Amino acid sequence: MYFSSDNAGMAHPAILQAILDANTGYAMPYGKDEIMEGVRESMRSLFEAPEAAVYLVATGTAANSLSLATLAEPWQTVYCSPVAHIQEDECNAPEFYMGAGKLTPIGQGDKITPDDLAAVLEGGPRRDVHAAQPGPLSITQATEKGRLYSVDEVTDLASMAHDCGLPVHMDGARFANAIAALNVSPADMTWRAGVDVLSFGGTKNGCVGVEAVVLFDPELAWEFELRRKRGAHLFSKHRYLSAQMQAYLADDLWLDMAGAANANLQMLADGMREIGVQFLEEPEANILFAYLPRAMHARLQAAGARYYVSSASSSDPAEPVLARFVCDWSLPTAEIDHFLNVAAG
Amino acid sequence: MYFSSDNAGMAHPAILQAILDANTGYAMPYGKDEIMEGVRESMRSLFEAPEAAVYLVATGTAANSLSLATLAEPWQTVYCSPVAHIQEDECNAPEFYMGAGKLTPIGQGDKITPDDLAAVLEGGPRRDVHAAQPGPLSITQATEKGRLYSVDEVTDLASMAHDCGLPVHMDGARFANAIAALNVSPADMTWRAGVDVLSFGGTKNGCVGVEAVVLFDPELAWEFELRRKRGAHLFSKHRYLSAQMQAYLADDLWLDMAGAANANLQMLADGMREIGVQFLEEPEANILFAYLPRAMHARLQAAGARYYVSSASSSDPAEPVLARFVCDWSLPTAEIDHFLNVAAG
Amino acid sequence: MYFSSDNAGMAHPAILQAILDANTGYAMPYGKDEIMEGVRESMRSLFEAPEAAVYLVATGTAANSLSLATLAEPWQTVYCSPVAHIQEDECNAPEFYMGAGKLTPIGQGDKITPDDLAAVLEGGPRRDVHAAQPGPLSITQATEKGRLYSVDEVTDLASMAHDCGLPVHMDGARFANAIAALNVSPADMTWRAGVDVLSFGGTKNGCVGVEAVVLFDPELAWEFELRRKRGAHLFSKHRYLSAQMQAYLADDLWLDMAGAANANLQMLADGMREIGVQFLEEPEANILFAYLPRAMHARLQAAGARYYVSSASSSDPAEPVLARFVCDWSLPTAEIDHFLNVAAG
Amino acid sequence: MYFSSDNAGMAHPAILQAILDANTGYAMPYGKDEIMEGVRESMRSLFEAPEAAVYLVATGTAANSLSLATLAEPWQTVYCSPVAHIQEDECNAPEFYMGAGKLTPIGQGDKITPDDLAAVLEGGPRRDVHAAQPGPLSITQATEKGRLYSVDEVTDLASMAHDCGLPVHMDGARFANAIAALNVSPADMTWRAGVDVLSFGGTKNGCVGVEAVVLFDPELAWEFELRRKRGAHLFSKHRYLSAQMQAYLADDLWLDMAGAANANLQMLADGMREIGVQFLEEPEANILFAYLPRAMHARLQAAGARYYVSSASSSDPAEPVLARFVCDWSLPTAEIDHFLNVAAG
Repeated sequence: MYFSSDNAGMAHPAILQAILDANTGYAMPYGKDEIMEGVRESMRSLFEAPEAAVYLVATGTAANSLSLATLAEPWQTVYCSPVAHIQEDECNAPEFYMGAGKLTPIGQGDKITPDDLAAVLEGGPRRDVHAAQPGPLSITQATEKGRLYSVDEVTDLASMAHDCGLPVHMDGARFANAIAALNVSPADMTWRAGVDVLSFGGTKNGCVGVEAVVLFDPELAWEFELRRKRGAHLFSKHRYLSAQMQAYLADDLWLDMAGAANANLQMLADGMREIGVQFLEEPEANILFAYLPRAMHARLQAAGARYYVSSASSSDPAEPVLARFVCDWSLPTAEIDHFLNVAAG
Repeated sequence: MYFSSDNAGMAHPAILQAILDANTGYAMPYGKDEIMEGVRESMRSLFEAPEAAVYLVATGTAANSLSLATLAEPWQTVYCSPVAHIQEDECNAPEFYMGAGKLTPIGQGDKITPDDLAAVLEGGPRRDVHAAQPGPLSITQATEKGRLYSVDEVTDLASMAHDCGLPVHMDGARFANAIAALNVSPADMTWRAGVDVLSFGGTKNGCVGVEAVVLFDPELAWEFELRRKRGAHLFSKHRYLSAQMQAYLADDLWLDMAGAANANLQMLADGMREIGVQFLEEPEANILFAYLPRAMHARLQAAGARYYVSSASSSDPAEPVLARFVCDWSLPTAEIDHFLNVAAG
Repeated sequence: MYFSSDNAGMAHPAILQAILDANTGYAMPYGKDEIMEGVRESMRSLFEAPEAAVYLVATGTAANSLSLATLAEPWQTVYCSPVAHIQEDECNAPEFYMGAGKLTPIGQGDKITPDDLAAVLEGGPRRDVHAAQPGPLSITQATEKGRLYSVDEVTDLASMAHDCGLPVHMDGARFANAIAALNVSPADMTWRAGVDVLSFGGTKNGCVGVEAVVLFDPELAWEFELRRKRGAHLFSKHRYLSAQMQAYLADDLWLDMAGAANANLQMLADGMREIGVQFLEEPEANILFAYLPRAMHARLQAAGARYYVSSASSSDPAEPVLARFVCDWSLPTAEIDHFLNVAAG
Repeated sequence: MYFSSDNAGMAHPAILQAILDANTGYAMPYGKDEIMEGVRESMRSLFEAPEAAVYLVATGTAANSLSLATLAEPWQTVYCSPVAHIQEDECNAPEFYMGAGKLTPIGQGDKITPDDLAAVLEGGPRRDVHAAQPGPLSITQATEKGRLYSVDEVTDLASMAHDCGLPVHMDGARFANAIAALNVSPADMTWRAGVDVLSFGGTKNGCVGVEAVVLFDPELAWEFELRRKRGAHLFSKHRYLSAQMQAYLADDLWLDMAGAANANLQMLADGMREIGVQFLEEPEANILFAYLPRAMHARLQAAGARYYVSSASSSDPAEPVLARFVCDWSLPTAEIDHFLNVAAG
């Protein structure tokens, strides 16, 4: 009954098989392996972006930080949600990679609204020299609360940013979950909507450890390569990253796993709804924040269920706890059933 | 006939098997997996250092840069060889991680001598405020030229550094090759000789992508953890790093592979010596710099042999080229034979 | 009628005379001048802190950034008001000097309350490795809105910070105005209340360009010196900084000028109050935020009055504008009278 | 008898008078003062560069570091002499401002030769991703040894750099001494010869503390302004920097003082030559390195002469010491006479 995170599950057997298959003889190091050539083509095809530059790194924080550093200057500030992973969970990595840039949380929740963005863009792209200068907009898709931006919402925000001369980054650690839920094309959700650079996650969705960075403007490629190397994120035995991504993209495995994770979460949410549990938001992807009555919480803990209790939970013992549930593709249905049985009491 | 580098060969099947074996159910992320507990114990036992802090990252540059950043202040300079990997091949990653620290190459070659070090330590540990302040000594074992420091040599250098209040880092990307060649204990080669932090390589020696950082002073542990996270080098699905290192340490696999690599190089060197090829230095580990007559070079290139031609080669077409040969554990003996046959003409 | 800022007025003649007096023969460079020895003694005496380390720089941003960098690690976050100068007006200088640290605005206004601080300290001094780690508390005295912390308020905040292991920085760009208004001893307002490092401003209060940094813990001295040099803020002809500070401290000139500036502001405020102008807050030092009816604003602009219109002003032309007035020591009383006459219409 | 440095002498009375004259009423802060408008015009006129962007800072290290940071990327390396001030005497400030860039000393002495530069440019402007990428060439005029580059020498080096796509920085802390000695136009020595950014020193040549940065490409202006502010080098009471520079440029004061300093040095050198003292190099500006016999050295020290003994001095007590002498404009002729009398014994 593991619902703590989607970063703790096993990798899909096809991902491991690809690593095994890649393990033959010598291969050019540092991203010049033949498998990577195929990955590049597959990614460009998937995104209908024949010119896009595609790179692989092994952690989501690296993907985000290198992307933002490539888009921003050190005297700028990145606009993001106050609960964005880059703001809350990366130990100043974005600031470090940006060369001491700043992050400005905007809005109150996980989804940035046009009003939130308008409020900070009012002063225009160039402020007086004393202020942090406006920098990239970073949006998380799916959000840290498991919600989604529609294509229209992304388009609106990106167009506001572009009108102000600012580039747009999408933290897609759970991009696959978003696409699986919304059933739109990756191109529509990214460059056609105005996204300039995408962190496209694999690790949380069935890979061993691989994230793609897709730069829709190939002019940024060489700078990104230098930043990746300087950040110590260029793998010598790169073929093992390539192999993972190759298998991930093949036969829509990425989409199937994300769909399975989303379905697992919906099954969990449906069951909880039936027994009267309230939610913070209606879940749209593979994350759910739910208010667990204390007795239910105690039963679940006693039964070994694993989930994250939010620090935003009430300290009043009569009030429910706010708990976060994340499902990955590999979660056995029986585990969900078991959880729901325990929860029902 | 691949002699370009030891970072291009396949991983050992036992390493891959360990990854497969680790791929079951859920595991605590971010280095809290159970396999890592075993790795920590194995490493401490191997180094006879029960208090050592042990961390895993995926690239050698990360291991070096994080180690140096943990040991140095941004206003200091690291003393290293002019051909050190940190100086030549890491695109300013050490400077970046140190927060804009400096590197000062000392000596003329791959091995730093006591005289080289004495010359820069003469001013003592605290210089006037205008100068870069003395910082860590970093030595590479085995060196970039395939040579070795004896335990006594390390002890002498480290003791000079310590007398000046400076810590000692060992870049052990090829530490296994050094230990296999010298047949000394890892403890004798490191902390007993005065090494404070070791980058202990796995990637070049049969792993998929894993390097250990061994901090013999556990006081440095928390800072290292924060630096690793801030550098985006903390893996969520850490168990796959742990599994590699577990298999690497088990049954002396690390030593066996390094021994095989060294033996391959010696077989190559013996063969080349027989046909009259001159060497830059007598090879001591798994790297050889050899002067190839132009005709031999042409034959080998035509036959598809892969090796690196040094930019230090003479531009005089009558002079031989200076070529670098690196052997890894997986190199088939038949390839060496074939190479020597082609070379012999 | 110049009320835009206290950084635009002339220097006091005694400050300039001190510069002239210092301009004789050769003097040791880089802070080793004899005048600086006297400054060090005067400052230690003024603060009743015989061990304090005292340094001079030429800008307030340098004083703040170097102070924070000396107190913080790059993986930490500084807690400050959302309108703090370090957050709003230093173009990422604190982040730059901290080596890519973070700033976390707390509270809603210019004065941080114990509740504001308690909310962020709840998690204790060491967070999980993914979060920015708690760092220094920085409070501005007098605040950017012209308000003051009492000694008790500083003591409470500092004690909460210290209980959590965090150091305390005071941005005292207008420290003199605060002391003049509160009539307490500098020692009571700083180290006795728990302040670890003080930026003690001179530039806004009648100097040409000099700020002192007072480190009450002399252990920080050498690191500060290195950071100052590395930041290019160590003056070779340091005697001219020393001379300014010497004259500033002599015969309570610093206090007299601040008192004059405060009195000017009170005269302005009294006059505005009489003609019915509303204030954002009751002014306590030399800054006033006042709501000017549009017609009054138009008359004043037409008459050449200079003050800063806040971006927080209503865009409704029927509503008053929110204007900031700052007085320095040199403002002629006649100018205030003239302003009030124009304002009265 | 002060020959230690030209940063320890008094400021010229005209410089101080200008500060006094500027001390009237209110002036726009942060470089928007009227005096600065005049400085900008004077500088553009002096350099025959009507489009040049001109900024003032207070230290030479700031001028150099900000200039290099504006010209270089963090993954690049600056080519400079091994005795360059930026390499030896700025405590990693250039690295800090460049965002962790590197410096590569080239050549053996104070003057870089075309061969020195050719050797490092051989690989072209873009290296493999593992190497520090080529960055700006920085040359010091006059050099740290008191020697000069001719216009032709600068032109040759700059043209080599430009051919490789690299910009050129001139550290002109003693630019005035060079111009006074060579009697060439500032334009010929800088942008016409290929210099892109000049640090034009005032502090060592009779000012209180002011350095100009002249960016011949105005496209760099806004970035420089942001870097200056972010580095805490933007003065609020900027008029006192402007006033110094205004007086410095007026009536060729800068050139007259530099000429006087050079003449003082020549007088010293002539006298020493007469009594048989050997020089390291023939002095060309206001610096001399001379070999003082031990007895002469002892007499001079006893008489209170101040000069810097090089660490390159022989440790053999029978050998002379290598001493550095620097003259500024204010050195009384009688002091030189007295020195020479003592030296002669």
